[in-house]
Amino acid sequence: MYYGYLNGTIAPTDQLAIGITDLSLLRGYGLFDYFLTYNGRPFQWDWYWERFQNSATRMHLPLPLSKDETYAIVMKLIERSNQAISKSGLETPIDVGFRFVLTGGYSADSISVVKPNLLILTEMIHPVPTGQYEHGVKVILDEYVREMAEVKSTDYKRVILMAEAIRAARASDLLYQKGGEISELSRSNFFIIKGNRLITPDRHILRGITRKTVIHLAQSDFQVEERPVLLSELYDAEEAFTTSSTKKVLPITQIGDLTIGDGHVGPKSKFLLERFNELVKSW
Amino acid sequence: MYYGYLNGTIAPTDQLAIGITDLSLLRGYGLFDYFLTYNGRPFQWDWYWERFQNSATRMHLPLPLSKDETYAIVMKLIERSNQAISKSGLETPIDVGFRFVLTGGYSADSISVVKPNLLILTEMIHPVPTGQYEHGVKVILDEYVREMAEVKSTDYKRVILMAEAIRAARASDLLYQKGGEISELSRSNFFIIKGNRLITPDRHILRGITRKTVIHLAQSDFQVEERPVLLSELYDAEEAFTTSSTKKVLPITQIGDLTIGDGHVGPKSKFLLERFNELVKSW
Repeated sequence: MYYGYLNGTIAPTDQLAIGITDLSLLRGYGLFDYFLTYNGRPFQWDWYWERFQNSATRMHLPLPLSKDETYAIVMKLIERSNQAISKSGLETPIDVGFRFVLTGGYSADSISVVKPNLLILTEMIHPVPTGQYEHGVKVILDEYVREMAEVKSTDYKRVILMAEAIRAARASDLLYQKGGEISELSRSNFFIIKGNRLITPDRHILRGITRKTVIHLAQSDFQVEERPVLLSELYDAEEAFTTSSTKKVLPITQIGDLTIGDGHVGPKSKFLLERFNELVKSW
Repeated sequence: MYYGYLNGTIAPTDQLAIGITDLSLLRGYGLFDYFLTYNGRPFQWDWYWERFQNSATRMHLPLPLSKDETYAIVMKLIERSNQAISKSGLETPIDVGFRFVLTGGYSADSISVVKPNLLILTEMIHPVPTGQYEHGVKVILDEYVREMAEVKSTDYKRVILMAEAIRAARASDLLYQKGGEISELSRSNFFIIKGNRLITPDRHILRGITRKTVIHLAQSDFQVEERPVLLSELYDAEEAFTTSSTKKVLPITQIGDLTIGDGHVGPKSKFLLERFNELVKSW
């Protein structure tokens, strides 16, 4: 059983509901963030909080709780969820996903922001199937760039709209490009490797915390280049991968009709995934 | 007291709530439509239903109800809302706004659509203050174009984000333009008048039902031009106005620093507003 928090109340997440005048429902006005716990502790908490706060500022929504107050609720939710899971006979502590959602709040005229609603949810983690790490994944190109990409707004219409196209191509996600410049996948960042160069787009992207973590981990072994990346650079990329909190370092072996490298998961992506796994193991 | 419908249940709207895994809340995946009743009857029902259905198709969301089933619920909600209003001592029948909201529905993995949620809400109508019809309104230009403008998705982030800029300019709304081409206001369509020519953008817009109604009403007295409209055409526009279900035909007398015509509400906008008011009076 997973617990959540909404405006001061803690309850099982399936009992939480939001009034129908909320501006996220009526007007798509909301933002969120998402992170995991490792060994019962929030991963990169300081960085996630900073990004959440930044999204809220950029969308002019005042945060109803301080960082410390929020952390206390996070720890309480971990405890409550674990108590419930323990009672059901499963082994604990179990790690969870945390989703913070800050909305425009209830609005009598369906357009004016009065007071944001804050949701803090624990969720079951849906790990990437092991086979995808072994064989890599396929993505397809999509001519698109997210509005306010650097803000983690709730606007993920595009990938839901394209679900059928992704399925039809037997792909697992979209790689966004606009005018020949690559930005990001629908919910994760993008990297390519050429020799000892690790290259990743630096604009029209959400600045991923896993992206930042991987860049730190790669620093001693790679020359890291954060800069605009062109579609044409895919042709001589030796390896490619995507990063997100749940995907960690997930190899990409095919982009549309283009096979990356020899089509197999490369040693450098594997190396970075191992470094990442070591870090979270001892978190 | 206003009533609403959610997935088979009718209840006062302030008692309706939606579970927190709904994709409109988590991912901004939803669409809506909005219309008024006049004399207790839905205005232009056939056209609104057609547009709602079109939005649903474009966003790959199957409608859970047929047109006739929905109409029956609409009429029942009008009746229930009026019964409640009558009990509170106010004169009935009272006209209401109807908001239909179709969302991506509840999603266990927070991304896959399983079954849409349909909300049908009655709302109090917030009429435009009379003074605005007498003096016209000011709008400010904004370099923006709505994603999938022709679909009435719930994505109205932009105007909420710009609320402070609108207030600071003592304006009432945004007029979107991109690369010098005008599309629409944040929630309404745009027209200019030059002599007997009535000109309105025909792309990157939501095709408003009031826009369509006004074009019909204007047919015998104006030469109507539906085509791309450039910013430069504002300089010799004699009149300008915006149309929406609540705004009807609302004169625009200032766009940013530019005064339209002599800065007063023009006779042709007044004429079209009168024609519209006659139509709805006898609806």
